[in-house]
Amino acid sequence: MDRIVECVPNISEGRDIDKIERIVSVIEQGEGVKLLSYEPDADYNRTVITFVGTPEGVVEAGKRLLKAAYEEIDMRNHKGEHPRMGAVDVFPFVPVKGVTMDDCVALARKLGRWAGEELKIPVYYYEYAATTPERKNLATIRSGEYEGLQEKLKDPRWKPDEGPAEFVPTFGAVVIGARDFLIAYNVNIDSQDVKYSKTIAETIRESGVLIKSKGGKKIFGADGRPVRIPGRLKYVKAMGVTLDKYNITQVSMNLTNFHVTPPHIAFEAVKLEAEKLGVHVKGSEIVGLVPLEALVLAGKFYSLKEDREPPEDPDELLKIAIDKLGLSVLEEFVPEKKVIEYMIE
Amino acid sequence: MDRIVECVPNISEGRDIDKIERIVSVIEQGEGVKLLSYEPDADYNRTVITFVGTPEGVVEAGKRLLKAAYEEIDMRNHKGEHPRMGAVDVFPFVPVKGVTMDDCVALARKLGRWAGEELKIPVYYYEYAATTPERKNLATIRSGEYEGLQEKLKDPRWKPDEGPAEFVPTFGAVVIGARDFLIAYNVNIDSQDVKYSKTIAETIRESGVLIKSKGGKKIFGADGRPVRIPGRLKYVKAMGVTLDKYNITQVSMNLTNFHVTPPHIAFEAVKLEAEKLGVHVKGSEIVGLVPLEALVLAGKFYSLKEDREPPEDPDELLKIAIDKLGLSVLEEFVPEKKVIEYMIE
Repeated sequence: MDRIVECVPNISEGRDIDKIERIVSVIEQGEGVKLLSYEPDADYNRTVITFVGTPEGVVEAGKRLLKAAYEEIDMRNHKGEHPRMGAVDVFPFVPVKGVTMDDCVALARKLGRWAGEELKIPVYYYEYAATTPERKNLATIRSGEYEGLQEKLKDPRWKPDEGPAEFVPTFGAVVIGARDFLIAYNVNIDSQDVKYSKTIAETIRESGVLIKSKGGKKIFGADGRPVRIPGRLKYVKAMGVTLDKYNITQVSMNLTNFHVTPPHIAFEAVKLEAEKLGVHVKGSEIVGLVPLEALVLAGKFYSLKEDREPPEDPDELLKIAIDKLGLSVLEEFVPEKKVIEYMIE
Repeated sequence: MDRIVECVPNISEGRDIDKIERIVSVIEQGEGVKLLSYEPDADYNRTVITFVGTPEGVVEAGKRLLKAAYEEIDMRNHKGEHPRMGAVDVFPFVPVKGVTMDDCVALARKLGRWAGEELKIPVYYYEYAATTPERKNLATIRSGEYEGLQEKLKDPRWKPDEGPAEFVPTFGAVVIGARDFLIAYNVNIDSQDVKYSKTIAETIRESGVLIKSKGGKKIFGADGRPVRIPGRLKYVKAMGVTLDKYNITQVSMNLTNFHVTPPHIAFEAVKLEAEKLGVHVKGSEIVGLVPLEALVLAGKFYSLKEDREPPEDPDELLKIAIDKLGLSVLEEFVPEKKVIEYMIE
């Protein structure tokens, strides 16, 4: 495929495996789309589905998925720990290869229009597809959740972007949008004491660390927000965690815009901060999937770091990235299972 | 005064007090201008001068100051720890009351034109008065310093904004501009080894630290810019310096937007990073003037940090700020000499 879009819809069913399989099975019932994974979570009562395909392929698959969920899921009985608003709760389009964010916004709007017209369900657009600044943030749109939706739909400020402003009790509402690729990326710290990973996480994550009062309270500044010392890296969420299985700890990160902060910069930042604390980095791991581009950038960076001209072959660059980031230190990094482009080929 | 502009020229003489006084004395030899302070620094071999006045008054005072420095200072013998390019090194106009940033840009250009035509010295405009994006940043204009100026002036890209592209050995060049209120703020580190202050500076300043190749070269990213690990605090410039006089080192900062990063956050960030390195903070100092608001914010913050209701009296808040930031640790902090509102009254 020359052009690849990833979709990561979440459906509000995480317990009834038969039902989940019936819904998920519709995704590949068409051209130009490939199901990559689905992960039911019983506590959340929610399933994260990942599929990729051509721009046309993913929109058609999206229609099939929305229709199947509309028919199979009844939100009137839904309970679960994760916030949700509808049977298909959130449906992001993510550019992977040969498509722009604007393309993905157009795809989101195409699917949304269809859902409003054909299924007659309320549709909200979020992130890059949002129609107002207030609707950019998913949590804001979803506040009040399914239970508050009937009231919310009466508020003119919350008129849906598509579909009637009428409550559909069995479905609720769907939030469709376009966002950047999210890379779940963990850097290993060669210490069993998690305090180092926690300090490093606080230093590098964008949100930094709250300054607390002696009595342990948040301190509010002139802007009404809690006072914090920000962290070093933009578009990075991070926390320190213990990984009992390997007797190490990790700085566990979400990189929400790898064009601004790619894995190799996160890795180098963790390494720098670890050295200050007298501990060492011992490789890293990518959880879930990664676009080839992110590791090609790393391969180029590490070639230049050793004063060498980067090779042009993406396979070569990938090998350098795997080596220098230590991606096979804990478990072997198999490109066919991790790199989106390799999975589709 | 209904309209007030602040000027904070820096002259490259911090040791010869007689000479400094002769230069500074010309400022008030005219209408509509009031000298607020001048602070010679022997290590930097540099004096920060602050005066305020009407738009007309400060431009005329600026002409007198440039002329006096041109006659008194000989850059051929100048040595000091602070980067500098000329006898009057930098000359910013800062809007204080009843004037806009655009007004200040016009005043900067008026003074610059005069200096180019009358003194025939090279003039560069920076910040809001810059003529190209590359010249916005003072450090970029000043790179190479006085010693590299003769070569730099031969480069067509560094043709001066005013005056001839000819090296004037006794003066060097002056950088004139318009900017927001800047707080020069230094936090003391209780160690004689400057490496700690340097590492802290690299961690907290917005520009962070460049990642170099093994051969010491910059590494360029996909965006064509040198790859760096950013620092924690927005609108903060910082470097580590040695302060021989007190046998300590300092994280020397410029806070260029104190509404985003006020002194107390810079102080807390330096403290946090110092602890990681096993060194300690020993008070801090404000070089030049500070708006009352910045220290009132600090007083409120430290009251809340001790779980106390902040007092309403600004004088009380100021006392708390002086105490908690350790502003009198090196030299006594006298509000009547440091806080801009107190000076103008």
